[in-house]
Formats: sequence, C-alpha cells, structure tokens
Amino acid sequence: MSASSLVAEPPREYLYLPALVELLETILLRHGCSAEVARSLAQNCAQAERDGAQSHGVFRIPGYLSTLDSGWVDGKAVPVVEDVAPAFVRVDAANGFAQPALAAGRELLVRKARHAGIALLAIRNSHHFAALWPDVEPFAEEGLVALSVVNSMTCVVPHGADRPLFGTNPIAFAAPQAQGHPIVFDLATSTIAHGDVQIAAAKGERLPPGIGVDSLGQPTQDPRAILEGGALLPFGGHKGSALSMMVELLCAGLTGGNFSFEFDWSRHPGAKTPRTGQLLIVIDPGKGAGQGFAERSQELVRQMHAVGLKRLPGDRRHWQRERSGEKGIAIACQQLEQLRELARKQ
Amino acid sequence: MSASSLVAEPPREYLYLPALVELLETILLRHGCSAEVARSLAQNCAQAERDGAQSHGVFRIPGYLSTLDSGWVDGKAVPVVEDVAPAFVRVDAANGFAQPALAAGRELLVRKARHAGIALLAIRNSHHFAALWPDVEPFAEEGLVALSVVNSMTCVVPHGADRPLFGTNPIAFAAPQAQGHPIVFDLATSTIAHGDVQIAAAKGERLPPGIGVDSLGQPTQDPRAILEGGALLPFGGHKGSALSMMVELLCAGLTGGNFSFEFDWSRHPGAKTPRTGQLLIVIDPGKGAGQGFAERSQELVRQMHAVGLKRLPGDRRHWQRERSGEKGIAIACQQLEQLRELARKQ
Repeated sequence: MSASSLVAEPPREYLYLPALVELLETILLRHGCSAEVARSLAQNCAQAERDGAQSHGVFRIPGYLSTLDSGWVDGKAVPVVEDVAPAFVRVDAANGFAQPALAAGRELLVRKARHAGIALLAIRNSHHFAALWPDVEPFAEEGLVALSVVNSMTCVVPHGADRPLFGTNPIAFAAPQAQGHPIVFDLATSTIAHGDVQIAAAKGERLPPGIGVDSLGQPTQDPRAILEGGALLPFGGHKGSALSMMVELLCAGLTGGNFSFEFDWSRHPGAKTPRTGQLLIVIDPGKGAGQGFAERSQELVRQMHAVGLKRLPGDRRHWQRERSGEKGIAIACQQLEQLRELARKQ
Repeated sequence: MSASSLVAEPPREYLYLPALVELLETILLRHGCSAEVARSLAQNCAQAERDGAQSHGVFRIPGYLSTLDSGWVDGKAVPVVEDVAPAFVRVDAANGFAQPALAAGRELLVRKARHAGIALLAIRNSHHFAALWPDVEPFAEEGLVALSVVNSMTCVVPHGADRPLFGTNPIAFAAPQAQGHPIVFDLATSTIAHGDVQIAAAKGERLPPGIGVDSLGQPTQDPRAILEGGALLPFGGHKGSALSMMVELLCAGLTGGNFSFEFDWSRHPGAKTPRTGQLLIVIDPGKGAGQGFAERSQELVRQMHAVGLKRLPGDRRHWQRERSGEKGIAIACQQLEQLRELARKQ
C-alpha cells in the first residue's frame, strides 16, 4: 500500500486476550473509571485489537484517558434503565460511556425482543468511542438479529452542503448463521472511519481521492488537512448522506441525546469522546415464517460464495481472531511499554 | 443531461390525481385484479407519477399487466394477517402484491407500535413492483418513524463477486417533522434503480461510468447491455453491498419469503414482478426521552440548511406534488391514449 510496508515491522510482543483486558482494565481504573466501566471498556477495546480492528483497539486508549482526565465524561457513571413499553427500553447513560449503558439494559432488551418479537434500546447522554460491531455481534450469537446506529461528532459534510454537520455515524448489523460465525458488518456512513484518518496521519500516508475536504472545502488526500479543520464526505454520495441523516434522527431525535453538532466540549481540553446517543433494535427471527433463519442466512452466504465472493464482511476479523487466539494478540513493544507505564502510574 | 433535452417535449395532457387513480383502477380491474388490489396499486402508481417519480409511475403499468396476464401473480389474492407476538405481525401475501398485504396488516402494526414502542411487519410471498417511499410516508404523517426494505430480483453483483445475486434492494425511511413535510428517503442499494436503467435504454441515453457491467462482467455505460445479461453494481462499493445483503436477510430470511435469486418464473413468460418479501419496522418516537421528536427533526433540517444544503431528500417530490395538485399530473398524450385503450378493452 505505502512505502512504510517495505520498512521492517517494529518488534512485537504477543499477549492473550485476558492479559490485555487486565492491563487495559488497570489503566482505566487508575484514570477514574469504576470497576464495571473499566471492565466493559477494556473488554471492548481488547476485542477490537484481537480482531485486527486497530483503529478501535489500544490506539484509542490515550483518547479515553485524556477525555477522562478532562472531566468531560464520568468514568464512574451509573446508567439508569427505564422500562418504557413492552418493546421499548430507555437508558440514561448519565454522561458515562455507551458500553456500560448497553450492558445495563441488555437483559431487559433481550427479554422484550424474545417476548414481543422486536425491541428497541434507546441510549442517551452517552459517549461512544469504540467499534460498533462488538455491540451487535453477541446478539447474533444468541440467535437474534441486531441493528445498531450511533452518532458521533461533526466531521462529515452532508452531500450537497458546504460545511460539516454529521458525524461518521456508523451502522452495524449482526445475524446468526447456522454453521459458521454470525454475519456481522459495521460501516461508517462516512467514506472512512475517523480513526483510519488519524492512523493515516500518524503514518504520514496519503488517502485515496474522494475521501474528504480541507478547511476550505476543497478535495484533499492529506489526512492532516482533514483532521485540521477539514472534513470527511459521506460514502456513496447522496445515499450515504441520507443514511447518515437517519442515524442522527434515530440516535439523537429518538433517544433524547445530542445531535453530532450539539455538544460543547470547549471547557474540557483533551476531551475526545462525542456525547450523543445510540439506538439498538433487536429482532427474534424465530417469530418469522418459513425455514429457520440461521439456515436461510447460511444459504445466502453459500450463494454469495457461488457467485465468486471470496471474503464476506467480518471474515478478516474472524481470521485475525483465530490467529490471536492461537498466537496471542501482537502489540508493538513500544506501545505495550507505554500501556504498562500508564498502568503503573497513579 | 442529454441531447434529448434539447428536443421539444411531446404534447401532454394534465390529469388530477383522482382521475388518474380511476383510470389505472379500471385498467387493473380489466386485467384480473380484485377491487381492493386495483385500488391499492392504482393509488400507489398514480401517487408516484404525481410526485415525478416516473420510473415507478404509469411507466410500470405494462409490466403489471404482462405479469397479471402471465398468471405469475394473483391479482385477486387475499392477504392473510397473523398476529404473532406483541410487536410482530406476519402477512402472507398469498402470491399477491405487497401493497394490499401492507394495507391488510397496517392497522394492527400501528396499534402494536403505539403500544409496544416499536413493531415489525413481515410480508412474504409478495410482489413489489413500485416505489418504496409510499409505503413509509403515511406512518410519518401519523407521527411515527418507519423503515422498510424490500428485496427484488437478481440484477446486482455483490462487491467483490463476479456475477449478480442481489436485487436492487431499496431502503426507505420516513420521520415526522414539526412544521413541514415528513423527512422521507427511498434509496436503491444498487447504483441506480432498475426502472431508471429501463428509462435510459428506452431514451437511447448512456449512463454515467461505474453504474453497471455487461454480460461478460465488463464495465459498461450502455443501459441495454445492463438489461441484456448484464447487471448493476451496489452503490458505495462494499458498504452498499453489505446493506444489500442485510436487505436480503431481512426480507427473505426473516419473513419466510424468497431471496432475490430464488424464484423461478420461467414458466410465466411476460412475468416482471419479483416474488419475494418485505419488512417494515415502525417506531413510536413519543416513547423516547427529551424534547418532542418532530421538533428535533425540524432542528436537524434547520441545521442542514445552515451548512449550505439546498435540497433535502424528498424536496423535489413535494415540489412536484404541489405542482401536480395545482395544474394536474402531466402525462404524454400518446401514453395517456395507450392507457385509455387498456381501460377500454377486455
């Protein structure tokens, strides 16, 4: 891809998942998180690293810490679950992270989905700074279909507009498959995820054309120009833009959270996490007619391979997950030393 | 856009909506539809024409009729509604059209959504040959948020595959707005809708690059090459392709309907309508926290205009709708004569 791939890889150390979770947990505990929150974020972050989703792995830890240190997010927040209707659960994340809010409402959500056939979880007043697929995949492992959307912070220009308004606003989906891993995808409605822009900037790489604009609204392939006053574009032109708008409506309008452009973190230098909302919809496919859903999804996958598809969404993640399970998760020694340092100091 | 726009427009006649609905109803009644089905399809089709969605307006009538004449679809089908769970409704369209199936399940769906907060309608064994936005817009007019997906027939190559498998698989969304029309979009997960390829072919126009491939899988800008053994591509590369896969899973896997590649109409020459499934999800935003949803969606629209957006999804439809309400719906005299001929003959 770039010149950097010709350079020798930096030395790496291999950690198994529990060890990485424990290390991240210790760091988060030392930076103002409660035990529950530290556990939840550490698992999420370590799983992303394990699955090769580096833009949402340990790379995110400094951002979590500077946000916690800034007082912008409450690392000890206790989410408040409200049972609103037979298929509708609300969670006030109480200015904490979205993952513990989901964990708090999850059991009620699943019970409602299994009883009513479909149920909704509306999280507000929450910070989501992670990959979205870890939020939906576990539902598919229980035989449920799950869809989630989360809005973020102004960095995407609506198609046809001049200036940014939307967040990267991802959509994640998970569905069970009879023999094999659940079918899972997680896609930013921006051309690429914000973390990938940051990684390209850190590596000094250029982006493909059509990804973003600079502070003057002009097309640029320089990731720093996107980060410094520029913005991303929606994927797929007006269609991706419409989907991004839908994510704003569902995550803010419906939950009672902020739109991506509404929160003001100017008094919290170092804050990195958007304070917005998240929506989850969970469906019990056992209520549908016809053959079992998981057999049907497997049939679809079989036919996708038959028309020449080599790799399904999520395949690379599963391949990497198996590899990490066998060999451990590879982390650059320098990065690991920094993490261990963070775990030591008060 | 093309040379044809320099040519004088053909002579047109102006019809008000009720007159066009009545004309289409008569045609459909004469081609084997029951009164309910004729009414439902005529309204849907006339509304699309009224709103300037020509690829789903009266242009579709010959396709409806050849399908009805072929015996592939049952124009007199009586949908069977099943009340499966507190938030889950199934409808067996009984090999009829999807619109009467939705009409049959609609009241129960709305009652469940208002009670449970969210509800799902799973239609199977159905034929959908129309625009999708008319299915969701009325929910938003009642203050509800609605999402619908429908799969169709193999004509889209999954991203990374060699041969077509998916349908054009649109996603439609509607949400209320406090002052103003509901926010509505309807987007094919293919680069463009199949009807637009047919219209371009009929006009002898070329398509922009990146839309589709010919029968050998090579990129083409010739709409006839796409229609004659070629295929469309998903919009937005792997992301649109993932969404199209999701539509297949929701519309076939979940409802018990066919995947886009499963039905065999070879014994019904003239058949044009896919026999698949449709999913609707309806949410009562009144169950959410915070300010009223419709006020919040209006705030989002205000901010979208503030960053320079001139036109929102659906704006052109509403502009055209108003114009049609004042002047009537413009239809080429030749086309109208053909429709009147179809209404006369047995």
